Amino acid sequence: MSAILKQRVRYPQYLKKLRTAEQCIDLFKNGQYLGWSGFTGVGAPKVIPTALANHVEKNNLQGKLAFHLFVGASAGPEENRWAEQNMILTRAPHQVGKPIAAAINDGRIQFFDKHLSMFPQDLTYGYYTKNKPNGPNLDYTIIEATAIKEDGSIVPGPAVGASPEMLSVSDKIIIEVNTKTPSFEGIHDIDMPVNPPFRKPYPHTSADYKIGQNSIIIDPEKVVAIVESTDGDKVPPNTVSDKQSQAIANHLVEFLEHEVKQGRLPENLHPLQSGIGNIANAVVEGLASSKFKNLTVWTEVLQDSFLDFFESGSLDFATATSIRLTENGFKKFYENWDTYSKKLCLRSQVVSNSPEIIRRLGVIAMNTPVEVDIYGHANSTNVMGSRMLNGLGGSADFLRNAKLSIMHTPSARPSKTDPTGVSCIVPMAPHIDQTEHDLDVVVTEQGLADLRGLSPRERAKVIINKCSHPDYRAQLQDYLDRATFYCTKKKTLHEPQILRDVFKMHLNFQENGTMKLDSWDKKF
Amino acid sequence: MSAILKQRVRYPQYLKKLRTAEQCIDLFKNGQYLGWSGFTGVGAPKVIPTALANHVEKNNLQGKLAFHLFVGASAGPEENRWAEQNMILTRAPHQVGKPIAAAINDGRIQFFDKHLSMFPQDLTYGYYTKNKPNGPNLDYTIIEATAIKEDGSIVPGPAVGASPEMLSVSDKIIIEVNTKTPSFEGIHDIDMPVNPPFRKPYPHTSADYKIGQNSIIIDPEKVVAIVESTDGDKVPPNTVSDKQSQAIANHLVEFLEHEVKQGRLPENLHPLQSGIGNIANAVVEGLASSKFKNLTVWTEVLQDSFLDFFESGSLDFATATSIRLTENGFKKFYENWDTYSKKLCLRSQVVSNSPEIIRRLGVIAMNTPVEVDIYGHANSTNVMGSRMLNGLGGSADFLRNAKLSIMHTPSARPSKTDPTGVSCIVPMAPHIDQTEHDLDVVVTEQGLADLRGLSPRERAKVIINKCSHPDYRAQLQDYLDRATFYCTKKKTLHEPQILRDVFKMHLNFQENGTMKLDSWDKKF
Repeated sequence: MSAILKQRVRYPQYLKKLRTAEQCIDLFKNGQYLGWSGFTGVGAPKVIPTALANHVEKNNLQGKLAFHLFVGASAGPEENRWAEQNMILTRAPHQVGKPIAAAINDGRIQFFDKHLSMFPQDLTYGYYTKNKPNGPNLDYTIIEATAIKEDGSIVPGPAVGASPEMLSVSDKIIIEVNTKTPSFEGIHDIDMPVNPPFRKPYPHTSADYKIGQNSIIIDPEKVVAIVESTDGDKVPPNTVSDKQSQAIANHLVEFLEHEVKQGRLPENLHPLQSGIGNIANAVVEGLASSKFKNLTVWTEVLQDSFLDFFESGSLDFATATSIRLTENGFKKFYENWDTYSKKLCLRSQVVSNSPEIIRRLGVIAMNTPVEVDIYGHANSTNVMGSRMLNGLGGSADFLRNAKLSIMHTPSARPSKTDPTGVSCIVPMAPHIDQTEHDLDVVVTEQGLADLRGLSPRERAKVIINKCSHPDYRAQLQDYLDRATFYCTKKKTLHEPQILRDVFKMHLNFQENGTMKLDSWDKKF
Repeated sequence: MSAILKQRVRYPQYLKKLRTAEQCIDLFKNGQYLGWSGFTGVGAPKVIPTALANHVEKNNLQGKLAFHLFVGASAGPEENRWAEQNMILTRAPHQVGKPIAAAINDGRIQFFDKHLSMFPQDLTYGYYTKNKPNGPNLDYTIIEATAIKEDGSIVPGPAVGASPEMLSVSDKIIIEVNTKTPSFEGIHDIDMPVNPPFRKPYPHTSADYKIGQNSIIIDPEKVVAIVESTDGDKVPPNTVSDKQSQAIANHLVEFLEHEVKQGRLPENLHPLQSGIGNIANAVVEGLASSKFKNLTVWTEVLQDSFLDFFESGSLDFATATSIRLTENGFKKFYENWDTYSKKLCLRSQVVSNSPEIIRRLGVIAMNTPVEVDIYGHANSTNVMGSRMLNGLGGSADFLRNAKLSIMHTPSARPSKTDPTGVSCIVPMAPHIDQTEHDLDVVVTEQGLADLRGLSPRERAKVIINKCSHPDYRAQLQDYLDRATFYCTKKKTLHEPQILRDVFKMHLNFQENGTMKLDSWDKKF
């Protein structure tokens, strides 16, 4: 038993249950329902999942030792290892990585994506375990901790995610105490689940509001094993902003400045939500170098760019359910722990993504879709309507409830044969996750479309003119003109569509590798 | 001045501003932004809109005296009169009636529908008046009152709707005091709007929770005219439940009983939300005659069937933003005022449809769509993707946030030539208002599909098998098989779709009056 483990585990009874990861293998049986801690690739258990994957690989148990696996959002490389070894029967509500996406898209994993605010509560309602033969609780939750307090409660690491809910509905609990990272004690603010009819208002009225509970209370009797882990999180390098994403950020900052001038936003804006990826990074950079001061962030995940945002002096406080940093990012974070731990708070995803709090605070939400249609619906999940990327995540939690709901996207993306072969503005999105009733603003490097108060036909005009790529503008306008003509005859002019033609850009992409059509009359 | 008017208006200064409706006409100019009280056809102003319509008709001012018109949801016959006289430039967020729907669908009115919880707050943010030349406030709000209190505050009638928000952002206010109906004083519970960053939690923790303010506080200086009205609300007779809707209700009651047995619902369920129409009526009848007791209702509109529900003894308390009764219903309501006013409360639509409160209370939401697709997306608004019916209403406020989100629909509807020419289960909904991430249960007279925890392909199987009409079951299964085959090859099996075929049922309906296809190979 390492000295550091003894120091971290301040509830000595747990130390009697110390095992190696390999000694945990016999706890697991085919078909069990498991919860893992973790969110956006950090804070997930590592050594036990790896030991199990090794066991399956070594003993050719692929498909014979498989699980219903629930994680707050995406776990780390371990879930991909499990996917490769056919160890996942069901997975929800989010995932990241080629192997697991491949397993979902070739039908080996039954995956469903769900609003991240809703997934943990539905789990506690027993919705996802209703066919489980031995009662509605999860068989095990495996949680990564960075410390254990005197009462046996758990101090998570860089992710809270769905751990409070999972632990509350688990028959048994296994703790991986990660001694490689410093303890995160003091950075969390934990709400434990309370279900209707006993639920009370969340009291949060600002990004920095804390209820004051910094660990996850559990029943220590449920803990069957603790394991020491010295594996770090493996977050890939950030995608850096480029000219295109900077152009998007510039449009956005200009728009926000205009809103302040018009009196529709206060000078320090409202709490910001920002997603993952190069556009999100460019937006954060753009805000950090803007004249906005005393900003706050209410979001689901913080990335390296937020450390720079803090350093710029413009950001007063940030809160999320996970802090997903690269190795360098975490190094910087730990070195400045005293500063960051005062300006940063990690909460459960039920709280970080709570419609109640997002709407109350008037959050400004910014996310990247697969594509947006001319009437303002967006596809966040399924390419060509069928191929799952990562899942919905919290996009709809934020976009439905924000005071300003913004989608930012390049106007076009390259296909294999055409540098602008995929238009991100289409007549109708072939999968819809965000509806026309949810989006206020669409922005591309071409420009910004302010959709507030516009009818669908007015929206189509402004999206095509301001946001579409010049290679597609005439083609989209042609579609709109034809659809308007067709629906004028039929007196169905509210939202003109020609169902026969509406996916021809996608069909042409599938057949010819580009969304550029010779003619809308082309047959498929 | 009538004695009853003097009695109702307890703030005498207003009586100095008494006018006839005709004397108000010169207050209105072309292009003004107007708010009306009202919700679901009750509580809207009547005599002034009628006087204005008469004025336009008599003086051939069609299209020359037209307005941007905002009402909490639908107004009454007066908005249809305005539509016929081309007096509406813009309309949001909901409407009911053939003339106004026709004007929207032939392009004379720019209409947008918006979540009913969100519309009033976005109005107060200035989002819908940002192009108004003379400042962000509405020019006038015309509100129907049933009494005025000593402080000049307004006691609405059978609808609260968006009136608190409209009045808070109106330059001037006109009050129609309705002396035909009794005063509704004491039945309302009014929250006035507070915007971020100053918004506080809504304290409501049960359907009968009241904050204790029973009138809408306004600045009396804004009132420019009051007018006496003796026009009653004109609600058409209720569509009665039939065998089909009773079958749906039976499936639902059985399901709820099962959920109680499994411990996923308490014995008195959670607060119920129910929509409008014959299925909703059958569901209410089914619940009233079930063994459930001590039920509560948290919904947006109460209909005549709720009076019977109260009489059954099963319903303890009901709250909504409007009470939309027929003439007979209102008669019964007034005769039993003392009973009903203790068991019933009307709130602003921001509160009745609040995601915060709906999620906290664990509401059971039940709504009727146009159609549902095999993966669990629903169309609530646009027939064939383009023709606006009424608008989204509060369907998505409830379905997104409810503990149980239920859509009930006949499995098929008649077309002109085929008694089952329209399948309400389709491969892909051509307009999506509720996403696959929002719905838990789909129920038709054929059966009930419990979608919780299922992957899209699992959902498709259960929706086709349990819910689709026998005339369409094989056809839908054929589509699913073909799409599965196609997407197996392409490794895009998460949500199998063939974009070339996905709307063929709709195209066949448009061309041949039925969704029954000879073959999926048929070309359009």
